[in-house]
Amino acid sequence: MSSEEHKNKAPKSLKYGIITVSDSCSKGLAEDRSGKYIAEKLSETNQVIKKTIVPDDGEQIKKTILEILGDVDCIVTTGGTGITKRDVTIQTVKQLLDKEVIGFGEVFRHLSYKEIGFPGIISSALCGTIGDKIIFCLPGSLNAAKLGINIIISEAGHLIKHLRE
Amino acid sequence: MSSEEHKNKAPKSLKYGIITVSDSCSKGLAEDRSGKYIAEKLSETNQVIKKTIVPDDGEQIKKTILEILGDVDCIVTTGGTGITKRDVTIQTVKQLLDKEVIGFGEVFRHLSYKEIGFPGIISSALCGTIGDKIIFCLPGSLNAAKLGINIIISEAGHLIKHLRE
Amino acid sequence: MSSEEHKNKAPKSLKYGIITVSDSCSKGLAEDRSGKYIAEKLSETNQVIKKTIVPDDGEQIKKTILEILGDVDCIVTTGGTGITKRDVTIQTVKQLLDKEVIGFGEVFRHLSYKEIGFPGIISSALCGTIGDKIIFCLPGSLNAAKLGINIIISEAGHLIKHLRE
Amino acid sequence: MSSEEHKNKAPKSLKYGIITVSDSCSKGLAEDRSGKYIAEKLSETNQVIKKTIVPDDGEQIKKTILEILGDVDCIVTTGGTGITKRDVTIQTVKQLLDKEVIGFGEVFRHLSYKEIGFPGIISSALCGTIGDKIIFCLPGSLNAAKLGINIIISEAGHLIKHLRE
Amino acid sequence: MSSEEHKNKAPKSLKYGIITVSDSCSKGLAEDRSGKYIAEKLSETNQVIKKTIVPDDGEQIKKTILEILGDVDCIVTTGGTGITKRDVTIQTVKQLLDKEVIGFGEVFRHLSYKEIGFPGIISSALCGTIGDKIIFCLPGSLNAAKLGINIIISEAGHLIKHLRE
Amino acid sequence: MSSEEHKNKAPKSLKYGIITVSDSCSKGLAEDRSGKYIAEKLSETNQVIKKTIVPDDGEQIKKTILEILGDVDCIVTTGGTGITKRDVTIQTVKQLLDKEVIGFGEVFRHLSYKEIGFPGIISSALCGTIGDKIIFCLPGSLNAAKLGINIIISEAGHLIKHLRE
Repeated sequence: MSSEEHKNKAPKSLKYGIITVSDSCSKGLAEDRSGKYIAEKLSETNQVIKKTIVPDDGEQIKKTILEILGDVDCIVTTGGTGITKRDVTIQTVKQLLDKEVIGFGEVFRHLSYKEIGFPGIISSALCGTIGDKIIFCLPGSLNAAKLGINIIISEAGHLIKHLRE
Repeated sequence: MSSEEHKNKAPKSLKYGIITVSDSCSKGLAEDRSGKYIAEKLSETNQVIKKTIVPDDGEQIKKTILEILGDVDCIVTTGGTGITKRDVTIQTVKQLLDKEVIGFGEVFRHLSYKEIGFPGIISSALCGTIGDKIIFCLPGSLNAAKLGINIIISEAGHLIKHLRE
Repeated sequence: MSSEEHKNKAPKSLKYGIITVSDSCSKGLAEDRSGKYIAEKLSETNQVIKKTIVPDDGEQIKKTILEILGDVDCIVTTGGTGITKRDVTIQTVKQLLDKEVIGFGEVFRHLSYKEIGFPGIISSALCGTIGDKIIFCLPGSLNAAKLGINIIISEAGHLIKHLRE
Repeated sequence: MSSEEHKNKAPKSLKYGIITVSDSCSKGLAEDRSGKYIAEKLSETNQVIKKTIVPDDGEQIKKTILEILGDVDCIVTTGGTGITKRDVTIQTVKQLLDKEVIGFGEVFRHLSYKEIGFPGIISSALCGTIGDKIIFCLPGSLNAAKLGINIIISEAGHLIKHLRE
Repeated sequence: MSSEEHKNKAPKSLKYGIITVSDSCSKGLAEDRSGKYIAEKLSETNQVIKKTIVPDDGEQIKKTILEILGDVDCIVTTGGTGITKRDVTIQTVKQLLDKEVIGFGEVFRHLSYKEIGFPGIISSALCGTIGDKIIFCLPGSLNAAKLGINIIISEAGHLIKHLRE
Repeated sequence: MSSEEHKNKAPKSLKYGIITVSDSCSKGLAEDRSGKYIAEKLSETNQVIKKTIVPDDGEQIKKTILEILGDVDCIVTTGGTGITKRDVTIQTVKQLLDKEVIGFGEVFRHLSYKEIGFPGIISSALCGTIGDKIIFCLPGSLNAAKLGINIIISEAGHLIKHLRE
């Protein structure tokens, strides 16, 4: 079966959970623009079952992911992917993964690099499987959300289909 | 010495082992098209010393690699690189590597992405060294075999030359 | 704040340490062309505080990095990134990192691949953080030094700014 | 301050969560004797805030630990520590730990070995920290629960005091 | 079921493979006294299916283990467990394990310490599972072989029984 | 050669470096009693080449170890081995080790447990090799220093002899 055929047989609409990881958003000091954008965009063709905001804290991120996971097909996180010590999303989520889909982060950075040049190399993005569910981690900026959500909308159904074969 | 000079001094013909990793091929329920393609293509300019089929089982994969390794310069595997729990080739082979050549997987996915778009991100491919031998792991589809074998034919001699300097 | 704004606020001049990793250069049997090139290029717009040559030895590499780190913003190493057992720079430096900036190696290999084709896949390059400092590891060839130093000059200030926010 | 003094300043009563990990208990096919014993024993001098039973499933174990953790000082698990592939408690909990207290497992096995001889070597027990909380994992047998709970009652307050200094 | 009952139901006779890891024995420069002792002792109540000698080389150790594993219940290795760089048995075998039975090494070192005092701390011994098989690694000295084989004879059946429940 | 013979051929006097890891001692807010005790005790039969105090900071610990290592046979650290997030000695030193001698920590904790009972389980101690040098990490209390230094004086020469065979 070709990739194209695979995609045709993939589920058309998936259930999503969205987690914004941000100290300032969780305290109400900043607006959650990226989380809202992701929710709106996904709602056009999928169902957003749950959307929540957590601070940059590994334990709360893990707990929230595991609570939501039972009710959705995919989780998308935004924020906490930078290079400072406060940024813990990537390493926290990696601990929970069964398998990483490393091509997702590569293509994300490649498109980011084509769009904005060398600053794109700093972008960190992650995709992986937990059981038969998929989790995507995007940076917190609105531009990153826009770039990432396009790849996610295009590929999540395909990944889920593979996982459940 | 430039890369070009390196390549000129690389061995022209290498000894290969080919391992198809597939439950269905090992039971005779499917034809091993990718393994056959790889064997034919490599035989044009190299020697294929050994070709075998094993099921998706980590222990058998390891055992087969270690048995073949002594008689060849390179091993190419096809299959078992996907995202489900049955797919164990990548993590099994990683355990055996001295060094990973991460650029191989990156370029493979990049070309895959250019060919088929976002579905290419799911492709997993691996290259690394075990002693002074090289092992390449390709996905099981015929398209992946075609894409991967081109990179392998182009670069295996170059890698082997570096390893044995 | 956009990437462009971030870059505008990044420090214009950074303090650098340069470490050439090479058995032959450290014994005086080869000229340190890449180290010299990197020093000259960086000196145009930054300060090179320290430049030294060490053999391909993990302990000496670690010791030298930790000694220099206190006096600089960034360290650039050249050499010891190949696939043989003598090449230990990448795994030695990885042990010291707080976070890896994996996009750096990816873009380096991507540009290398675009420049020289498949031989570029063998290039290994690394970037990561140690506390609020950045370390970059480049291959030892002069071409690699030229390619890498362009990315470094473009992005190091940006990375340092993020780290110290 | 000596260990004795430390212990005198340790909190006298702690809040506990108890998690029995067992496929058969979670389906009601076996009685949860060890979990009940641990709950009774801890209740004599501490508070048991939550007691629950989960199947031998990594995701459910993680999710339950992270849900309970916010409301307690310590979690004790019983079961799922054996050597078969179904037994996943030890590796699942290890992923969540900040630090392992390796002396706990050593002393547990040492006492087990003194009590029953060589069969005691198969016992696996784990203690570690998650933030300023402690988690203990005991084997599922009633004898193991009896042995382990004595060490826990003696040392948990001491460990918590250290963590919160 | 108590440990005692478990042991009563354990298989009385197991099939063993024995691997002596030693550069000097494999070249015929030293007599394989420990391997012979282990073979004689095991043969009293079990079957020794295969006995072989390999040099201190990771790849050959792995290959030999995987070749023998299909025909036996347990493998015992002797030698290559020391602290020098030539000693590679422990880390080589660890890579192959599904689970480590850490109590085995602990009790081995404890008994070694009780017998010879502090020099016993240097002893390294390992036990773990590969699929439903068990592998034990003992140091190369005859004293270590004597100490280790007692624990193995006492516990291997018990471990195998657990694994195959 | 028996352990006893090995010990007789071990070097009688070794060169030591001592590193006290403590925020309060490095700021002069506490007296370095354990470091002084270790220095006095070692000086009776060995040479103390270097003694220094560093704060609980991973980078400074690594840097200091690597600076001292060239001039000594063994390094002993005291402090920073506890279970809080400030305690970083154990994980910092582990990153630098070629091999861990796990029996050292086990016997240390065992003797600690025999001396003070269950509180001894919290003690963390480490021994390992870096090249042909040995490093020991002891807890910061004076009691731990006394217990540990006895094992070190008894065994360091034996370990060094093995490493340099």
